[in-house]
Amino acid sequence: MSRPLTPPSQTSPARPIADQTPGTAGVPPDAAEGLALIKPSVRAQTAYTLSAPPARRKLNQNESPYDLPAELKAEVLAEVAAAPWQRYPEFSPPALLERLAAHYGWRADGTLVGNGSNELIQATLSVALGAGDVVVAPAPTFSLYRLLTNVLGGRYHGVALGRDFAFDVDALIETASRERARVVVLNSPNNPTGSALPDGAVERVLEETGALVVCDEAYQEFGGPTAIPLLGRTSRLIVLRTFSKAFGMAGLRFGLALAHPAVARELAKGKLPYNVNLVTLATAAAALRHGEALAARTREIVETRQRFIRRVRGIGGLAPYPSAANFVLIRCERVNAKEVFRRLLEEDGILVRDVSGSPELADCLRISVGTPDDMEAAASALERILG
Amino acid sequence: MSRPLTPPSQTSPARPIADQTPGTAGVPPDAAEGLALIKPSVRAQTAYTLSAPPARRKLNQNESPYDLPAELKAEVLAEVAAAPWQRYPEFSPPALLERLAAHYGWRADGTLVGNGSNELIQATLSVALGAGDVVVAPAPTFSLYRLLTNVLGGRYHGVALGRDFAFDVDALIETASRERARVVVLNSPNNPTGSALPDGAVERVLEETGALVVCDEAYQEFGGPTAIPLLGRTSRLIVLRTFSKAFGMAGLRFGLALAHPAVARELAKGKLPYNVNLVTLATAAAALRHGEALAARTREIVETRQRFIRRVRGIGGLAPYPSAANFVLIRCERVNAKEVFRRLLEEDGILVRDVSGSPELADCLRISVGTPDDMEAAASALERILG
Repeated sequence: MSRPLTPPSQTSPARPIADQTPGTAGVPPDAAEGLALIKPSVRAQTAYTLSAPPARRKLNQNESPYDLPAELKAEVLAEVAAAPWQRYPEFSPPALLERLAAHYGWRADGTLVGNGSNELIQATLSVALGAGDVVVAPAPTFSLYRLLTNVLGGRYHGVALGRDFAFDVDALIETASRERARVVVLNSPNNPTGSALPDGAVERVLEETGALVVCDEAYQEFGGPTAIPLLGRTSRLIVLRTFSKAFGMAGLRFGLALAHPAVARELAKGKLPYNVNLVTLATAAAALRHGEALAARTREIVETRQRFIRRVRGIGGLAPYPSAANFVLIRCERVNAKEVFRRLLEEDGILVRDVSGSPELADCLRISVGTPDDMEAAASALERILG
Repeated sequence: MSRPLTPPSQTSPARPIADQTPGTAGVPPDAAEGLALIKPSVRAQTAYTLSAPPARRKLNQNESPYDLPAELKAEVLAEVAAAPWQRYPEFSPPALLERLAAHYGWRADGTLVGNGSNELIQATLSVALGAGDVVVAPAPTFSLYRLLTNVLGGRYHGVALGRDFAFDVDALIETASRERARVVVLNSPNNPTGSALPDGAVERVLEETGALVVCDEAYQEFGGPTAIPLLGRTSRLIVLRTFSKAFGMAGLRFGLALAHPAVARELAKGKLPYNVNLVTLATAAAALRHGEALAARTREIVETRQRFIRRVRGIGGLAPYPSAANFVLIRCERVNAKEVFRRLLEEDGILVRDVSGSPELADCLRISVGTPDDMEAAASALERILG
């Protein structure tokens, strides 16, 4: 077969690869052939990125300010040291699924574990969305929903949040109905605004639309209602939880999905086998054993948040929004948000998230709730910068 | 809004969720509403599952028989004990990417890390495949390619391997051209057959088709050529590697993709942020530092494999296929494969993989290469069972 066959699916004809002289440092000069095989909907997306300079006080990723308790880490490390690292982790870890089910008040056969809840968002969208299917979500919200929808060939509709970024449930239902949404994603409390769904909202979305309703409750331990009790009443609901926030496990990556067992079996086809490694499985089990200590930290973070919001309300030129999460969104009314961001970092070593590039969030910064000392420092720095 | 709106995208009309009495143990009796929102192409798939009884000698998952060296584990555990577990892992770990690039002879900006190479197969297919796009791969091969293609709405064409399961490169090219394949996936050495691509085959597929060629080289350290040198000559090639096999890290989950930097940037949009946790990142770096010790084990496993193949060739009623991987496919010609599987497990505590359910593999078992002692035990047991 010496005559090249007609190349079937690219914009330019194939050349013998030996004819392509490597360019700088070994890269072929022509990226066009490879890029032509990437979907246009993907190429049009901006990648999810984060560049974060090192800082003394890291308040930019809604992490817990506290490392896991030393005793918990020691238990995990001892267990892991004795485990065979060359063996695949359990395919479906039955003891952990039972413990998770007991913790959340649901069933083990309706529980799936993931490499962070992100993986379960991806699995859900990949098993539900066909080409052109519509996803409806509030705007602004966690940017990954839009990115994944577009990569999967779906269509994404953001529905503006209302006054003070409260959920506009009527508008969500109206849009989901009009667009015949296949999936509605509700992040409550919502990142990056901190707003929680009002009581009864998920029931209404379920009753008044035919969509699969995905409740991403990554921050639920810090405030707002949970949709978990509704799992006993409908198979059109998927609740996602993460151990990255209140459980302080962002470095280990662990999340879960709760759903009707029959739906969970379908979701499992969208996630990868052996997706959660042996260290993360051991840490998740240990975090549940130490649940009371971690819950006490969550209560402290909520108190710190409320104290911080009160302090910031007293600073002229800053308007904090209500928050049910472990972060606070603040509008900068007098000094430019980018300027406040820069001075916090350079003068005080405080790294926050500059979200002001998003049109709905012009002038806004998102500040994660750290230790009481972190938030005292942040409030004092803001007073000085705005004063 | 008390009147329910017309439900847009389901097969049965929505009922108020309060009307649905929970069934057994809290599950709503009606799974139909939720299942109607899962794509038919997904529901038609059989999930990837593995049920593996405990066994003294575990030769069913192509794992390394050796745990990582104690010194390596101790280094990782010390590093991890001191790390903050509540912080997200590095977004893109620059030092590790440089080390990986040096190890594989490619570029850091063309290297992506994943939670196992499975995640990078998924990312590749999700950014390349639109609805109805065709994936061509040999048959039989690793079943995940078909599952993911179908979940993503693509069409999958398996091309039969030739005599002794050798790759039929002409047939692959002919099918890829006829079906206008967008992606060709080549697993070499191929799981579960052990066959490696002949020299020059990847060049031919690249030159004679216009497809994106994905070379999954999960087992390449154990034999056969690598396509990595071709990365300098075409942007239509993606090479996947894993640390689950020769690097003995299956329990930690680590894999990587090598591609043209411009293509790698697009692949990154199909994978999740923070996909590799802090322990896995630390272990991968440690495995590269201990590369020579791990390479010595690989050489031993290859010698053990060849000795085992010679032993099995001497057993009447068994036909081992040539293997370039860390497993051997064996056809059982006189005693039923399921019977051989059962007796190995029950009489000798040896767990192998029964692949005889697949039509092309009727009568076949796949046996991972364990320690010399494991393989001596397996060969003796096979002699007794067949004798």
